[in-house]
Amino acid sequence: MGKTPKNLWTAPPTKVLRADPDSSIADLDTRSTPGFTGKKAEGKEQLETRGQVLSDLQELLYANGRSGDPRSVLLVLQGMDTSGKGGMVRHVIGHVDPQGVDHAAFGVPTPNEKRHHFLWRINKALPRGGQLGVFDRSHYEDVLVARVHELVPKKVWKGRYKEINQFEKELVDSGTTIVKVAMFVSLDEQKERLQERLDRPDKYWKYNPSDVSERALWPEYQKAYQAILDRTDTDHAPWYVIPADRKWYSRIAVTELLIDALERLELDWPSADFDIDEEKRRLAES
Amino acid sequence: MGKTPKNLWTAPPTKVLRADPDSSIADLDTRSTPGFTGKKAEGKEQLETRGQVLSDLQELLYANGRSGDPRSVLLVLQGMDTSGKGGMVRHVIGHVDPQGVDHAAFGVPTPNEKRHHFLWRINKALPRGGQLGVFDRSHYEDVLVARVHELVPKKVWKGRYKEINQFEKELVDSGTTIVKVAMFVSLDEQKERLQERLDRPDKYWKYNPSDVSERALWPEYQKAYQAILDRTDTDHAPWYVIPADRKWYSRIAVTELLIDALERLELDWPSADFDIDEEKRRLAES
Repeated sequence: MGKTPKNLWTAPPTKVLRADPDSSIADLDTRSTPGFTGKKAEGKEQLETRGQVLSDLQELLYANGRSGDPRSVLLVLQGMDTSGKGGMVRHVIGHVDPQGVDHAAFGVPTPNEKRHHFLWRINKALPRGGQLGVFDRSHYEDVLVARVHELVPKKVWKGRYKEINQFEKELVDSGTTIVKVAMFVSLDEQKERLQERLDRPDKYWKYNPSDVSERALWPEYQKAYQAILDRTDTDHAPWYVIPADRKWYSRIAVTELLIDALERLELDWPSADFDIDEEKRRLAES
Repeated sequence: MGKTPKNLWTAPPTKVLRADPDSSIADLDTRSTPGFTGKKAEGKEQLETRGQVLSDLQELLYANGRSGDPRSVLLVLQGMDTSGKGGMVRHVIGHVDPQGVDHAAFGVPTPNEKRHHFLWRINKALPRGGQLGVFDRSHYEDVLVARVHELVPKKVWKGRYKEINQFEKELVDSGTTIVKVAMFVSLDEQKERLQERLDRPDKYWKYNPSDVSERALWPEYQKAYQAILDRTDTDHAPWYVIPADRKWYSRIAVTELLIDALERLELDWPSADFDIDEEKRRLAES
């Protein structure tokens, strides 16, 4: 765990946050901080320390990518409005070199995107070898908003869970480590965050009237989220369930999940694909 | 100038670094720090303080983009190998929210890119409204390496200066502020930096034997760089000449150039495009 005092985590986030088939998100305490015994101040400190570790590991991944390693890491961020997806990108991904990040945000599909299979726009945005991909929303919208609003017939969205599992399996087989993060805030916490957007002129741009309309559909969304955890949590592409009322916690948790994913690649600096002594000689003469 | 003590800059970087038709890059002191009276320590401190200002301005740009403002800023980075283009992205652009950055690196054109006009791949990578675009190398390679290595007939590359000016004019007219930065290290400084890549196993991946071969063509590259400054420095898309032997200086200089570009957009938080009181009522009831 690098420079971090180990005792702040009583259990690794990969374990305590992994989606659990025996529990329901209805029972999730969104203010909890599973596995972490520190408070906000320690959390913020940890974000800086561990953000640096993440940055170092990302540079290793990037270096290997530049040397032909096809492997990549893809962070998939899902969560209701205000759950903190944007802040996650800013404050966690913000620690790493922008050159190594392939970021994509998936909004309402464009008319052109709608004419394609739902995975078409996803495929186009996949990270290249050596890159840390970040999806702010993803193909899961096609079984979340699409299901809740019945944008497609039931038969269609029902078939997508299997399609997604298949798609992710192929992605993993081709060298991408997928880290799927579902962030959950409570209905009350969401209300407070929306209220803030209405109270502060520097936040108006983040507010969308439809966010309030969607609140009426909260139970349906919970059900749809439960379904993706039940049906698309796989060993090759696991889901992590993040209590997100405390932003500082969700950020250090995801930082740890990414560090774990990168460490499991067991990366080392690429060896020289040239004759070092010969190049030193050539350089000296140049 | 925000929190920064004003007296460290005796003159604004936009003035002292602007390409000067009456001077030649052959006379540039690449170890100089034009306009800045501080040393390395003050420079590094300044990078943090001003990086935060840059980040705040970028958020404003992003917010406006989300609200439909088509304007964007494009940083074009050019420079010989080891001049610090990658470090510029990491340490300067690294201060801003990754969501707001459209980064593109242009290497040797792929076979497919070669089949297209040289501006084809450039057009595809232009920043969207609200984004800070960053080009690590750019369309200028097509009058630099293409000229030095005679990759295309003289008649072709000669015509490109005019094409580039035209292209950039259209880009500016459509709302993109272009900041073109040419970074210059000395031949000796480059040697030291290449030597470091050969001495350190964690830097091997950055080394390419062709970098040494290119050193023999240094005078030709200088001539080609002089030509882009002479022919493509325009009021709508100015060139800035950055002495880059001192990395800390080139980074604070480019930070200031970007801050200036963003400040000139005179951005404010977008106004609400909804009825605030009505939304507060709806939220309270939700």
